[in-house]
Amino acid sequence: MAESDARASLAPDADPGYVEAVVDLLAVVSYGEISAFERLAEDAKLAPTLRDKLDLATVASTELAKVAALHERIRHFGADPFEAMGPFRNPIEEFHAHTAPSDWYEGLVKAYVGDGLANDFYREIAQFLDPDTRDLIVSSTAEGSHAEFVVDRVRAAIAADPRLGGRLALWGRRLMGEALTQAQRIAADRDALSALLAGGLDRPGLDLAELGRMFTRLTERHMARMGELGLDA
Amino acid sequence: MAESDARASLAPDADPGYVEAVVDLLAVVSYGEISAFERLAEDAKLAPTLRDKLDLATVASTELAKVAALHERIRHFGADPFEAMGPFRNPIEEFHAHTAPSDWYEGLVKAYVGDGLANDFYREIAQFLDPDTRDLIVSSTAEGSHAEFVVDRVRAAIAADPRLGGRLALWGRRLMGEALTQAQRIAADRDALSALLAGGLDRPGLDLAELGRMFTRLTERHMARMGELGLDA
Repeated sequence: MAESDARASLAPDADPGYVEAVVDLLAVVSYGEISAFERLAEDAKLAPTLRDKLDLATVASTELAKVAALHERIRHFGADPFEAMGPFRNPIEEFHAHTAPSDWYEGLVKAYVGDGLANDFYREIAQFLDPDTRDLIVSSTAEGSHAEFVVDRVRAAIAADPRLGGRLALWGRRLMGEALTQAQRIAADRDALSALLAGGLDRPGLDLAELGRMFTRLTERHMARMGELGLDA
Repeated sequence: MAESDARASLAPDADPGYVEAVVDLLAVVSYGEISAFERLAEDAKLAPTLRDKLDLATVASTELAKVAALHERIRHFGADPFEAMGPFRNPIEEFHAHTAPSDWYEGLVKAYVGDGLANDFYREIAQFLDPDTRDLIVSSTAEGSHAEFVVDRVRAAIAADPRLGGRLALWGRRLMGEALTQAQRIAADRDALSALLAGGLDRPGLDLAELGRMFTRLTERHMARMGELGLDA
C-alpha cells in the first residue's frame, strides 16, 4: 500500500524526462482512442445490416469511454490533455488517411489488426512505466469484446468468397507497413519517448537485442491475429 | 414487490395490441438512439476544437449505451429488436436528411432541441405503459450531461455573433416542423401505437382535449429549451 502510494504520487517531483515521456504515451493512446472512435463510427456506415452497424458503433463507443481515465492521468502529471495530444494528431490522422477501408471487411480487419498492433506496442512501452500508469495503459488497450465479433464476421465472409481472403491478407500487410512508418515518425519526433525506450541512468532500457526481440513479439502477435481471421500474414 | 413482479411479467399473456404498441415504442426509441449516435458522431467532425469534438463524441456514445437495455425489453416481449426497428428507419432517417446541420452550431441546437422534443414525446407516451417499461423509457430519454455543454457553447457563440441567434432561431422552428411531420407519419402507419394513445376497453387513453394539452406541454417545453439557448422559439 505504502509503496503503491509512493509510486502513485510520482508526478510532481518525478524526473522531467520521464514525465514528458509518460505524458506523450498517455496522449498518443488517448488520441488513438478518439481517432478510433471517429473511424469506427464512420466505418459503421458501411455495415451490411443494422445489427452489424450497432455492433461496430458499440465498439467505437467502448474505445471512446477509455479516454477520460487517460486524460485524468495526464492531468495528474501536471499536463493538459489537449495540448499533450497535439503532436500525435498528424501521424495518427496520416495513418488513417493512408488506410481508409474501401469496404466493410477492410474496416473490420483494420479495427482488429491495426488496433491490435498499436495496443501491443503501447503495452510493450508501458512495461517501463510506474505501476499505476502501466496498469492504466494495459487496461485501456485491452482487447474489447469486438475481437470475437470481427473474427466471426471476417471468417464467414472468406468462407463465402475465398478471393476476399487474398485481398484482405494484402490489406493486413499494408496496415502493418503504415503503422511502422508512423511509429518511426513518432519515435523520431518525440525524444523523451525514445529516451524512455533507451533507458536512463536510473532506469533500465532496451538494448538493440531487446529492441529486436520486442519487434519479433509484435510481429508474432500480428501474425497470430491474421491467422485468427483466417488470413496469411 | 408482488405487484411489481406481476407487472414485470406482463409480457407473454398481455393484450397483443398492447404488446405491439409497446414494442413499437421501444423500437422507435432504440432506433432513435442509434441514429442519434450516427448523426452526433458525424457532427463531431465539424467541431472547432478537439475538446469540442471529444465532448460531442461522448454525447454520441452516451446515446448508444442506452440501446442494449431497450433491446432486452423488446426481447422480453417476445419480439426481435432489429425487426421491430425496421418500420422506423425511414421516418427517422428522413427527419435527419431534412435537418442536416450546415455547421457546428446547427448540430448542437439539433442535438439539444431535436432530441429534447423527441424524448418529451416518448415520455408522454410512456405514461400509458406498464411501470417497468415506463421507467425504462423515462431513464433512456433522460437529458444527458450534454445539455449543459450545448447551452454553454451556443450562448457563448450568440454573444460573440448576435446574427447567429436569428439563424439558429429559424433552425429551431424548422426542427419542430420536421419532427411533427415525421411523428404524424409514424402515427398514421402504426395503428397499435395510435390505439395506445386513444385507449382501449380496459385502458384509459387520451381524448381530444387531453391530446391538445399534451401538445401544449410539448410546445411549452420546446420553447423553454429554445429560451435556455437564448433563442426565440
